[in-house]
Amino acid sequence: MTSAPAAATVGMVGAGQLARMTQAAATALGIRLRVLAAHADDAAAQVVPDARVGDWGSLTDLRAFAAGCDVLTFDHELVAPEHLATLAADGVPLAPPPEGKLLAQDKLHQRHTLAAAGLPVPAFAEVAAPEDVRAFAQAHDWPVVLKSARGGYDGRGVWVCDTAQDLPARWAEAVRAGALLVEAHVPIATEVAVLTARTAAGATVTYPVVETVQEDGICTETHVPARLDPAVLARASRVGEAVADAAGAVGLCAVELFVADDGAVLVNELALRPHNSGHWTIEGAATSQFANHLRAVLGWPLGATEATAPAVVTVNVLGPEAMSEAQGGLDPAVRVPSALAAPGAQVHWYGKMPRPGRKLGHVTVAGDDHAEALRQARAAAHHLGGEEGSL
Amino acid sequence: MTSAPAAATVGMVGAGQLARMTQAAATALGIRLRVLAAHADDAAAQVVPDARVGDWGSLTDLRAFAAGCDVLTFDHELVAPEHLATLAADGVPLAPPPEGKLLAQDKLHQRHTLAAAGLPVPAFAEVAAPEDVRAFAQAHDWPVVLKSARGGYDGRGVWVCDTAQDLPARWAEAVRAGALLVEAHVPIATEVAVLTARTAAGATVTYPVVETVQEDGICTETHVPARLDPAVLARASRVGEAVADAAGAVGLCAVELFVADDGAVLVNELALRPHNSGHWTIEGAATSQFANHLRAVLGWPLGATEATAPAVVTVNVLGPEAMSEAQGGLDPAVRVPSALAAPGAQVHWYGKMPRPGRKLGHVTVAGDDHAEALRQARAAAHHLGGEEGSL
Repeated sequence: MTSAPAAATVGMVGAGQLARMTQAAATALGIRLRVLAAHADDAAAQVVPDARVGDWGSLTDLRAFAAGCDVLTFDHELVAPEHLATLAADGVPLAPPPEGKLLAQDKLHQRHTLAAAGLPVPAFAEVAAPEDVRAFAQAHDWPVVLKSARGGYDGRGVWVCDTAQDLPARWAEAVRAGALLVEAHVPIATEVAVLTARTAAGATVTYPVVETVQEDGICTETHVPARLDPAVLARASRVGEAVADAAGAVGLCAVELFVADDGAVLVNELALRPHNSGHWTIEGAATSQFANHLRAVLGWPLGATEATAPAVVTVNVLGPEAMSEAQGGLDPAVRVPSALAAPGAQVHWYGKMPRPGRKLGHVTVAGDDHAEALRQARAAAHHLGGEEGSL
Repeated sequence: MTSAPAAATVGMVGAGQLARMTQAAATALGIRLRVLAAHADDAAAQVVPDARVGDWGSLTDLRAFAAGCDVLTFDHELVAPEHLATLAADGVPLAPPPEGKLLAQDKLHQRHTLAAAGLPVPAFAEVAAPEDVRAFAQAHDWPVVLKSARGGYDGRGVWVCDTAQDLPARWAEAVRAGALLVEAHVPIATEVAVLTARTAAGATVTYPVVETVQEDGICTETHVPARLDPAVLARASRVGEAVADAAGAVGLCAVELFVADDGAVLVNELALRPHNSGHWTIEGAATSQFANHLRAVLGWPLGATEATAPAVVTVNVLGPEAMSEAQGGLDPAVRVPSALAAPGAQVHWYGKMPRPGRKLGHVTVAGDDHAEALRQARAAAHHLGGEEGSL
């Protein structure tokens, strides 16, 4: 018996929740998804038959993984740029290509590139010593923000110096992270994210702007539509699309933006892959970000991006600080059905071992009324991952 | 390292497209799905890591498969009732229980049971010889319909006798199928289906009535909302729910109904599992039939069933009669992206080897306008599975 052919084979480096959710989209489209998992029970490895256990830090493992894939893509930003360059030189189709990925991996390079393209970024400078930071603060005023050029996400790799007195202690922490830049501190009114799917040929579709709520640098809620002036949303959307083009993104491009008090938008972070701020698209948009990522990396026609309900709220569930893993932590056999008590709650559990602060799942509610959707989503998220004993 | 626990382990006997689509719902809910596949490349076995290859006709295989599952459910009606009874006696939780499943497996038993419960079925009789059919026709008039009590679906196991002259030939064909019943031929205006999810405790939710379009006994299109008088829809919905209760369904119960010219509804077929007429719920309803099936078999709270768009049309793709498998049949690498050219088309490819008449995939379009949704869905379905060379 001949096996039925797949529409394509897509290799995704990484096997976290983004790869896990990509599998549902791949299944519908007849795409064979292969994931490179660090451990056999990674979130995506639990649901993808073609999960290969290997090290994304090893060129040998990456080469073996890529063999037979129509395209190689990523659920994280961690593969070394030099490995990506080698794979590209081998002829492996990478989505995004290495030069685009580098913009998401190296913040200093990103700031230089986007500023050179005329895109709005916070004032920034490379710094090698505390004197450089003081000089920057003389020009831009305190507070300033120290950032590591590489490896920072979810609030890691960021040190705020409110005054010159803070600098020695912050510098001592930050300098261990390697290359540093300093940025002006933006008085943030709101944060938003713009998701664009882009093909290698330059076709794009862009989702409605998402309002993101951050706590300690981690996105805890998203709201669609964003509760902002339409002119600001239009500006954010244009910047997001321009960044995707400037990056030469292939696949999803997620641009996190600061919206300043005066309505100006400034690029904060960039990810060239499906993104936490786009989980609402699974139930709330005509095409999910995961489906459009796959369609984009394969050069297929892109799907419609409009919201399918007047209000779509997603609440992320993080492992609670007070959880006691020794006592069994969060038992999904109890928590998931409990969270489903709200009939409109769309519950996603990532299958990960609970740890404090870890992203464990999310809840989306799509409805006619924003306040009611928010209330239901928060209640369900609390049941899914609230503190022990608080149910 | 301890593996992260799942919310539940659900075993599904069968690994066709219904099990394949159930996997996406299981993944979101943190449920570990296990499927019993006849072949290692069955539609669901391609996307479920815990696919076990075995024979649903073998009690030994069924017992081994059930070990460690919280509940056993089905993507078909083919497991022998005696095996189900044995598994139940073993203490395996079956959803539905064997006595419910038997109503979907044995049409004569079903007709007797539903009629005894006061539910509307076509006039019917058990027949052992052509004389019995003639006697039935004297009371109910020609045409009559011969049906095999077991094993018939998708138009198989059904023989229409328009006149007494047809009987000898039809009888000769039909009698090979085993136990037979005869039914009055219902002058059908429309066919509809009612999907109800039901827990063992008797909680139910029911989806909007689906209008189904049949060709040669196979459903080719579904339309939501059904284009029928609201009073007829309400009647159909009540009958569907009553059948689910009478069957003691646990999980999805799909009731296919004839709507006669006078607006009367009569039960045609019954399936106690997710059903082809419910594929529209993946993108078109607040909760998919697959998610509600899982929630129901586990006794979890059921999800909202309302349609999320004013019009939802699904078109099924069957292997075309004229396809030449020798020439490569339908290549999904070409067909799937071609079908995605309509931005609102939600394309599902089941990963099956194309054969004439085989269900290969479907397309759903949800939108504001029924005619436009239908046009787009038909166009995309044609690209996905139309005759060779007709693109």
